[in-house]
Amino acid sequence: MKKVVTFGEIMLRLSTNQGERLSSANTLHMHYGGGEANVAIALAGYGYNTYFVSKVPDNPLGKGVCRHLHGNGVSTDFLLSGGQRLGTYYLETGSGERSPHVTYDRKYSSFSEITGDELNFEAILKDADIFHISGITLALSESLRELVLQAVQTAKRLGVQVSFDFNYRATLWSQEEAAAAIKPILPHVDICSCGELDAIYLLSIPKARSEWDNQERLVYYYEKINEMYPNIAVMASTFRTVHSASHNELQGNLYLDGKLYQSKVHDIKPIVDRVGGGDAFASGILCGLLEDQAPAELVAFATAASALKHTIYGDCSQFTKKEITRFIEAGSGRISR
Amino acid sequence: MKKVVTFGEIMLRLSTNQGERLSSANTLHMHYGGGEANVAIALAGYGYNTYFVSKVPDNPLGKGVCRHLHGNGVSTDFLLSGGQRLGTYYLETGSGERSPHVTYDRKYSSFSEITGDELNFEAILKDADIFHISGITLALSESLRELVLQAVQTAKRLGVQVSFDFNYRATLWSQEEAAAAIKPILPHVDICSCGELDAIYLLSIPKARSEWDNQERLVYYYEKINEMYPNIAVMASTFRTVHSASHNELQGNLYLDGKLYQSKVHDIKPIVDRVGGGDAFASGILCGLLEDQAPAELVAFATAASALKHTIYGDCSQFTKKEITRFIEAGSGRISR
Amino acid sequence: MKKVVTFGEIMLRLSTNQGERLSSANTLHMHYGGGEANVAIALAGYGYNTYFVSKVPDNPLGKGVCRHLHGNGVSTDFLLSGGQRLGTYYLETGSGERSPHVTYDRKYSSFSEITGDELNFEAILKDADIFHISGITLALSESLRELVLQAVQTAKRLGVQVSFDFNYRATLWSQEEAAAAIKPILPHVDICSCGELDAIYLLSIPKARSEWDNQERLVYYYEKINEMYPNIAVMASTFRTVHSASHNELQGNLYLDGKLYQSKVHDIKPIVDRVGGGDAFASGILCGLLEDQAPAELVAFATAASALKHTIYGDCSQFTKKEITRFIEAGSGRISR
Amino acid sequence: MKKVVTFGEIMLRLSTNQGERLSSANTLHMHYGGGEANVAIALAGYGYNTYFVSKVPDNPLGKGVCRHLHGNGVSTDFLLSGGQRLGTYYLETGSGERSPHVTYDRKYSSFSEITGDELNFEAILKDADIFHISGITLALSESLRELVLQAVQTAKRLGVQVSFDFNYRATLWSQEEAAAAIKPILPHVDICSCGELDAIYLLSIPKARSEWDNQERLVYYYEKINEMYPNIAVMASTFRTVHSASHNELQGNLYLDGKLYQSKVHDIKPIVDRVGGGDAFASGILCGLLEDQAPAELVAFATAASALKHTIYGDCSQFTKKEITRFIEAGSGRISR
Amino acid sequence: MKKVVTFGEIMLRLSTNQGERLSSANTLHMHYGGGEANVAIALAGYGYNTYFVSKVPDNPLGKGVCRHLHGNGVSTDFLLSGGQRLGTYYLETGSGERSPHVTYDRKYSSFSEITGDELNFEAILKDADIFHISGITLALSESLRELVLQAVQTAKRLGVQVSFDFNYRATLWSQEEAAAAIKPILPHVDICSCGELDAIYLLSIPKARSEWDNQERLVYYYEKINEMYPNIAVMASTFRTVHSASHNELQGNLYLDGKLYQSKVHDIKPIVDRVGGGDAFASGILCGLLEDQAPAELVAFATAASALKHTIYGDCSQFTKKEITRFIEAGSGRISR
Amino acid sequence: MKKVVTFGEIMLRLSTNQGERLSSANTLHMHYGGGEANVAIALAGYGYNTYFVSKVPDNPLGKGVCRHLHGNGVSTDFLLSGGQRLGTYYLETGSGERSPHVTYDRKYSSFSEITGDELNFEAILKDADIFHISGITLALSESLRELVLQAVQTAKRLGVQVSFDFNYRATLWSQEEAAAAIKPILPHVDICSCGELDAIYLLSIPKARSEWDNQERLVYYYEKINEMYPNIAVMASTFRTVHSASHNELQGNLYLDGKLYQSKVHDIKPIVDRVGGGDAFASGILCGLLEDQAPAELVAFATAASALKHTIYGDCSQFTKKEITRFIEAGSGRISR
Repeated sequence: MKKVVTFGEIMLRLSTNQGERLSSANTLHMHYGGGEANVAIALAGYGYNTYFVSKVPDNPLGKGVCRHLHGNGVSTDFLLSGGQRLGTYYLETGSGERSPHVTYDRKYSSFSEITGDELNFEAILKDADIFHISGITLALSESLRELVLQAVQTAKRLGVQVSFDFNYRATLWSQEEAAAAIKPILPHVDICSCGELDAIYLLSIPKARSEWDNQERLVYYYEKINEMYPNIAVMASTFRTVHSASHNELQGNLYLDGKLYQSKVHDIKPIVDRVGGGDAFASGILCGLLEDQAPAELVAFATAASALKHTIYGDCSQFTKKEITRFIEAGSGRISR
Repeated sequence: MKKVVTFGEIMLRLSTNQGERLSSANTLHMHYGGGEANVAIALAGYGYNTYFVSKVPDNPLGKGVCRHLHGNGVSTDFLLSGGQRLGTYYLETGSGERSPHVTYDRKYSSFSEITGDELNFEAILKDADIFHISGITLALSESLRELVLQAVQTAKRLGVQVSFDFNYRATLWSQEEAAAAIKPILPHVDICSCGELDAIYLLSIPKARSEWDNQERLVYYYEKINEMYPNIAVMASTFRTVHSASHNELQGNLYLDGKLYQSKVHDIKPIVDRVGGGDAFASGILCGLLEDQAPAELVAFATAASALKHTIYGDCSQFTKKEITRFIEAGSGRISR
Repeated sequence: MKKVVTFGEIMLRLSTNQGERLSSANTLHMHYGGGEANVAIALAGYGYNTYFVSKVPDNPLGKGVCRHLHGNGVSTDFLLSGGQRLGTYYLETGSGERSPHVTYDRKYSSFSEITGDELNFEAILKDADIFHISGITLALSESLRELVLQAVQTAKRLGVQVSFDFNYRATLWSQEEAAAAIKPILPHVDICSCGELDAIYLLSIPKARSEWDNQERLVYYYEKINEMYPNIAVMASTFRTVHSASHNELQGNLYLDGKLYQSKVHDIKPIVDRVGGGDAFASGILCGLLEDQAPAELVAFATAASALKHTIYGDCSQFTKKEITRFIEAGSGRISR
Repeated sequence: MKKVVTFGEIMLRLSTNQGERLSSANTLHMHYGGGEANVAIALAGYGYNTYFVSKVPDNPLGKGVCRHLHGNGVSTDFLLSGGQRLGTYYLETGSGERSPHVTYDRKYSSFSEITGDELNFEAILKDADIFHISGITLALSESLRELVLQAVQTAKRLGVQVSFDFNYRATLWSQEEAAAAIKPILPHVDICSCGELDAIYLLSIPKARSEWDNQERLVYYYEKINEMYPNIAVMASTFRTVHSASHNELQGNLYLDGKLYQSKVHDIKPIVDRVGGGDAFASGILCGLLEDQAPAELVAFATAASALKHTIYGDCSQFTKKEITRFIEAGSGRISR
Repeated sequence: MKKVVTFGEIMLRLSTNQGERLSSANTLHMHYGGGEANVAIALAGYGYNTYFVSKVPDNPLGKGVCRHLHGNGVSTDFLLSGGQRLGTYYLETGSGERSPHVTYDRKYSSFSEITGDELNFEAILKDADIFHISGITLALSESLRELVLQAVQTAKRLGVQVSFDFNYRATLWSQEEAAAAIKPILPHVDICSCGELDAIYLLSIPKARSEWDNQERLVYYYEKINEMYPNIAVMASTFRTVHSASHNELQGNLYLDGKLYQSKVHDIKPIVDRVGGGDAFASGILCGLLEDQAPAELVAFATAASALKHTIYGDCSQFTKKEITRFIEAGSGRISR
Repeated sequence: MKKVVTFGEIMLRLSTNQGERLSSANTLHMHYGGGEANVAIALAGYGYNTYFVSKVPDNPLGKGVCRHLHGNGVSTDFLLSGGQRLGTYYLETGSGERSPHVTYDRKYSSFSEITGDELNFEAILKDADIFHISGITLALSESLRELVLQAVQTAKRLGVQVSFDFNYRATLWSQEEAAAAIKPILPHVDICSCGELDAIYLLSIPKARSEWDNQERLVYYYEKINEMYPNIAVMASTFRTVHSASHNELQGNLYLDGKLYQSKVHDIKPIVDRVGGGDAFASGILCGLLEDQAPAELVAFATAASALKHTIYGDCSQFTKKEITRFIEAGSGRISR
């Protein structure tokens, strides 16, 4: 069984009922989530041997994280325990024209204060096939930036493929800071989740011609990135058309061997919960690569996985490969009985 | 007051909250339902004297079935008590592109093991105006197939109109089995819920020309069925366009005296719960026939009843004739205050 | 800080869960609301010094009203305590084609039996900038009609601007009764919420030419009203296209200095709760007037406030000016994190 | 099957979650209840043919009453529809030392405004075995007092046994008013639920000697009542020791042929819901009388029925005779599996 | 890390809210549980390497079982997938005098139809320290009786300690059947959960003298059992005094090397959920044995674990060794902050 | 109207459902609370003009605090907005022998990082009658210790009575730290909540003779404290006997003019929520002092207020003076209807 390791922060998410404001809520729903944990969970659900590397406090919330990961089949052998607190965010669920709203309370988290000597990536990454990280971790501290750099170097040395998701969050850092932190990582990356905005604002690639369509523009950016970082064999992203908080269209893009493959456009309405939609897509890409799926099927699979994620609560995808494949075949919405 | 008798299985339905998967659910909603029970309930709500004939176990779930039927005005004078268990199914509520998913646990139910000597249809059908059954019952056992045949023969002898809903379920039996079981029933049927797929796959009617539109095709099939079974005076069905699990379009069809009558197309979004939508339509047809409604009004009524059913939880229609009529007149969605 | 006074009834609203009928519900959600209270709350949220004048019983429900008002920053210095009961209504939540349905139980309420000597409007309106009332109060009793007339006369004498919302409810009174009661008030009104139907049926203005579009027709009616009541400096209303109970389009209109200003059309789907949408619009208009906003911005603000209200449960708007402004700028539905 | 008729008001009960105050609640639980309806439901559950005579409004709440009664097997053949509103009360659930608190909103109810010509007791009481009423109805209006008097006279004429529950409520009327209204009824009563306080304050029986114990005092009062009204063949009541809102002790008393029979003392903790506990006791008494149970068993049955009622939510007893008998035999609290 | 293997059935439990009857419930809570699974979970929580051996259907409920086991740290490497259905039971929660009531729907379960060739106990039990089973499995089929016998023989051969819990359930089989099935197992058992009733009715040990106290009687029975089965090194049981469904007293007994050790008496009120209390005790005994705890501490630990289980919902204990130890030290009920 | 000012931290409390562990919870209940805020709310409910002085972040949770305070009638004129986060704690609700368990996440809160120049106590305390603080604030930072000292000095200068609650929390600081911080405050205190443990461990008063009873011991300690700080005119505390997390006995003590007054012992079971019970007592003491109640009545009132608090969810008392007085008179648990 192939082995996947992901490294990043997992947070407590506390979300309101639909149609309620956080400031007047009485009840909150608890979920645990974070990009890298979500990817680990999705890949465990697809049958891989997955490890989530992180740090959570030694309290009931840290224990809750473990239950969540175990229940979803992810190993916590390299999940550290200790530190001050679990990063937390409050999600005011959006609806229609009203956007969801996130209130972060993630500072001073156990993960953000992790130090290099706490983790032995040599041991962690042994025999791994893929090591997945994201830009969010780089944003959290100087020390984490160094740690990630060492980890990806170790990965390359051990022959582990490195998957990197840009995941730029404007609330965490500026574009300049992000660019400075991401660039040293990219020469070690094999699989990369990034899109047009990342190319322009973080990699300083000149804007594509405005008369080009979406697809042409994306090919242009991916070619440019490939020129800069020929080591990046796979690039992936989604086009998301946000009609409202309850209605998005989603199309997946996969760039492989100089060619762009696109999924059909999923019309997602109503959106039950879009948090984690990008992670479900990234997981689908990794799954397809691990299985040497043909590119067109691969991007169809990853996008379908993402679309399905939007229909359930919680950050992580809970669908098996069989369910996703059947979903692609059966079309949408018919009752199965 | 006119009397209607329906005979079939009623099951416990356990459904998830929206946006939750059955495999990770913590809470389930309980409803009781089954096609023939749903028809009995709808007709009781329209003011008829209705009896639901079936068998449920002598335990709290059997008692729950009785409460459900009584609360909705259906007589349980001919509801047997005994046997092993109540047929059960789990409904994972769908949303948008994600289909609802049914997990059946209905084997060995009290109803499926009913035997002929437990029911005296002579007494049950005395003075009845309509006797309603469906193909699902035929699928459950050889013994039930015989029982239904005897029952419809008794009905005809007593001058009771027989209503039959094909209700083909591929998870229960093959098309060949279904065809073999349904054909002996049809010569006794007066009112029949069936559609294009039933005509082709169960009655082996050659496919209509592909250039015909929906309406022309349906007329063709109904004419063919009428040639085979001239006793069937009324045929009805719906055209359902499934945009997603949350959005269907629905149009009702009624074939009477060689002529097809169609309702307007209802645009149903969001769908709250589509289980029982077909039963609500069938009930509306029977109600209209009992009242000698004009065909165009009749099909409008039945389709409106079905559309309204999609907006509430549970298998059965809870609307009065007055509410349905007012809905047809007022158009949709305006607050009434 | 500017001072706003509103006078009217506040009721207990008991609403069903989505997809449930009132007749078979087990649980109801409690909210308190009423047009004038909703306006007071919204304006308190925008930072004004607001007073809600009314009467509630001296029991836990009356106390609940106070908590609701205080929690939303409205002063209850002029809220009387006493009388028989709190007016109540039951709201069966609609969905898709099925309209919401209101069951009133508001007779004999403490407010409806208020008498003139219980309130000293001289003191209440002192230093106020705006006094807001609606046609609903006029419908409740002869005594209230007199009281309102005295109140608006007092307001005018004290230099307070009078805002009047027609808010015609056919279940409360006939058009003739409404017309007779409203006409004596109008000569004292500065700001008026009314629309085409009010103009035709309550003010007997001849119908506009049918070939005119919505906008032209509205201008015609507003001009006519201005001829009759030149004192009315501002008129406002919304165009609401009801696609279903879950989907409306909403556009705001503002008539000022003989000119019509219109907001963009908001596409509201799904509607979480449309009760109070009109009050949120009226509050937005009053807020903009108090702040001397430019008319185009003003109507955009008021309509956005109304659109946002449709996305949360409860009768009242809980959005700050900053949130509404950001909503206008950011466009709809994007997650902010 | 024996026939029982009860006549009285049924109300909507809206109750808070445990540990919440009504003035700050967000959600309420709906139940329908009233002493005479509760008795009808319990007796229907015991297998009798029961009719509840009352009046409810023609709205969804009136329909909810019908569903409640039907679901519990009670006939609504003599349930009138019309009038202004359904009597309502709000129940703030108590806990430990904190008492439950009732806020009434029952004035102007459809039942309270019932008139004599709406009901034909001659037809209603035909072939009945028992007619059950309570003092609450007498408290509601002069017209109801007359109606009840005529009804009990009719009952006696038709040979129907009359059961009367004093049910004195200080919030509804004074002791003087109650005494004046009850006394004309008593000469027609066969079975009577009343206790020490009723004897002293409503029937003006001199207080028993203080050195007597509970049992001796009760015998004294029952003898005195029997002297005054020798027609009363059966008297029953409970001793309730209120340790707290969550803990009561309950003992049943039955006075028959000059002798007092007492049940064991039930230790009820925690109390889930004590509303309707007295009605469950009264129903048990009537059931035992209809079945000619031996007095000691009868009072044990009635008290057990009442004790069980305290363990479930809602006003009415939902236990079968078999369940109550098994409860008496098995003792309390052991899991049955 | 020591390895524990348990083998038995796991079922879906569907339980009502407190104060509701199953026959009128609308919502059910889902838990998964079964004696041997509960023991595996508790021991996983104490830090052992545990395996639960069973069979569940290949459907979402079977997947739910896996999530439950994984989330609690139990390996499913030997959990078979297939068969017809998941055994199910409905739990009507008791309260005070009213007992909880179980409605079984467990026939035809995947586990009950397991066959001998599906499991290789040689491989399963390799390197195990303890193999735990219970009498319930023996009750389910002849084939399971044979399978268990082979399994315990294999265990002995491999040097694995065998733990057996009598767990007699009268609803599953007669005392004679149970005795016949259990006796062949006992010669292979090292650790045994059994009590006075098991000794008398299943092992036909003559009743102890009635003048002896509980403790003396238990010692007598354990001595007798030890004479019959000298291989049984450890016996354990609890004394449970059932005051009501909400209040039990619980004392643990441990018989080791001919001596009885008893815990303090825990006063458990209110009982939140007593299902699984016995399994928590048995797990505590096994934990103590694995750690060579002194007998007095061991029985204190096991009984405390059981007492704590009664305070949380669900069948399984969720407490760590540290929490249980702290609970023993700190005494009960003080807030820790 | 008398004016009361309280100063301290208010936190978000997130609590589990009864019978659930935090580590496996799905839903949390939101409350806001803190000793000084709770006192302010209770006193506002008693009709005083109260101000809560603190600092909360400028985010929806900070806004939620404002709604909570306003809804309960407390002025936020001196509530600062800003800083990093709202202090948070998770409450795992206890039950029976299982203690409630608090997980703190309060570091870096806006309040804890408040600085002296942000608050002008001269203005805040102007015209105040009472200024209430607690030892918790002293534990949070050196800077807060200085701020509190300045504030109490200001209070004394302005003639404001100072109320101080020791509220020692071992998780926040050591006894030595606490003693060092509290001693400088005490010379400025008029009213003090403290008990035996505070006297011994924080004020180093030699232990009372062990043969003395509770009451004698308390008088001894209070006399000693009075010798040290003759300025303390009033001392108050409760004796709490913890039978379990669900059952406490509570007796209030008031020491005034050298004499001890004690309330009756309240038997509190079940405890719904004991958080805030001490604050309710302290508020009752302050209320009685402000009204010059006789000491025996005063301590009865304060203890009754505390007992009632234990029966509702949330940190703060929601009872009026009239309700508390009626509770004292009526005794416990009787339904009022």
